[in-house]
Amino acid sequence: MTTAEDTVFAYWDACEARDWERFAGLLADDIVYHLPQTRERIRGRDAFLRFNREYPGDWHISVTRVVGDGRRAASWVTCAVDGEHVPAVSFFDLDDDGRVSVVTEFWPEPYEPPPGREHLAERYPAGAVV
Amino acid sequence: MTTAEDTVFAYWDACEARDWERFAGLLADDIVYHLPQTRERIRGRDAFLRFNREYPGDWHISVTRVVGDGRRAASWVTCAVDGEHVPAVSFFDLDDDGRVSVVTEFWPEPYEPPPGREHLAERYPAGAVV
Repeated sequence: MTTAEDTVFAYWDACEARDWERFAGLLADDIVYHLPQTRERIRGRDAFLRFNREYPGDWHISVTRVVGDGRRAASWVTCAVDGEHVPAVSFFDLDDDGRVSVVTEFWPEPYEPPPGREHLAERYPAGAVV
Repeated sequence: MTTAEDTVFAYWDACEARDWERFAGLLADDIVYHLPQTRERIRGRDAFLRFNREYPGDWHISVTRVVGDGRRAASWVTCAVDGEHVPAVSFFDLDDDGRVSVVTEFWPEPYEPPPGREHLAERYPAGAVV
């Protein structure tokens, strides 16, 4: 039986391989892709495929973690693009056929810590392997 | 049996209630709290408790989603603070006793979408219920 975790691993694998036919096979026709940070929403497999195919830059995805249960999953991936490594966090809903029907995705950017907690937190250098 | 999902719901519930004794009971002694965006790391239950207790502002947490499997889980919560609603995404590792031993947390901030995908994405107003 294919689990939600398997599906999410396959999703990122097809994405990284630019295997859009395989990628499309994992998606519901009426998939909704939601980016709360920019308040953008993309509806439907065709538009979502085009968004991914047309995404600029020589980007490469490596999966850091996937956790799934039933028809839901979350992933944390690292996207290498133009010499930078940026994390992305996604929440997935699968439909009754096990296809991805909703993806809600966050692209958290670096920021400076607010003052007042230096006594509790250590800070490691940019680019450190952690 | 307590699942990772149950533990994460209890974690946020105790946090929101400022019930630091109950919160502490869910944590491993050697918990590591990791904030990749600021490159901060907080080690140990005492420091992590203090970080939470001292966190400024009249913040309130509501859980949007938790997904867990075995000793791992992810959550997406919404933090209401000073009239704003900001998402936080956390990945949890539990130790053999079911206590939270690693939390990796992201606080994704709003940003403007890059140009070139207006033909694919609809955009909804700030503050819209989605």
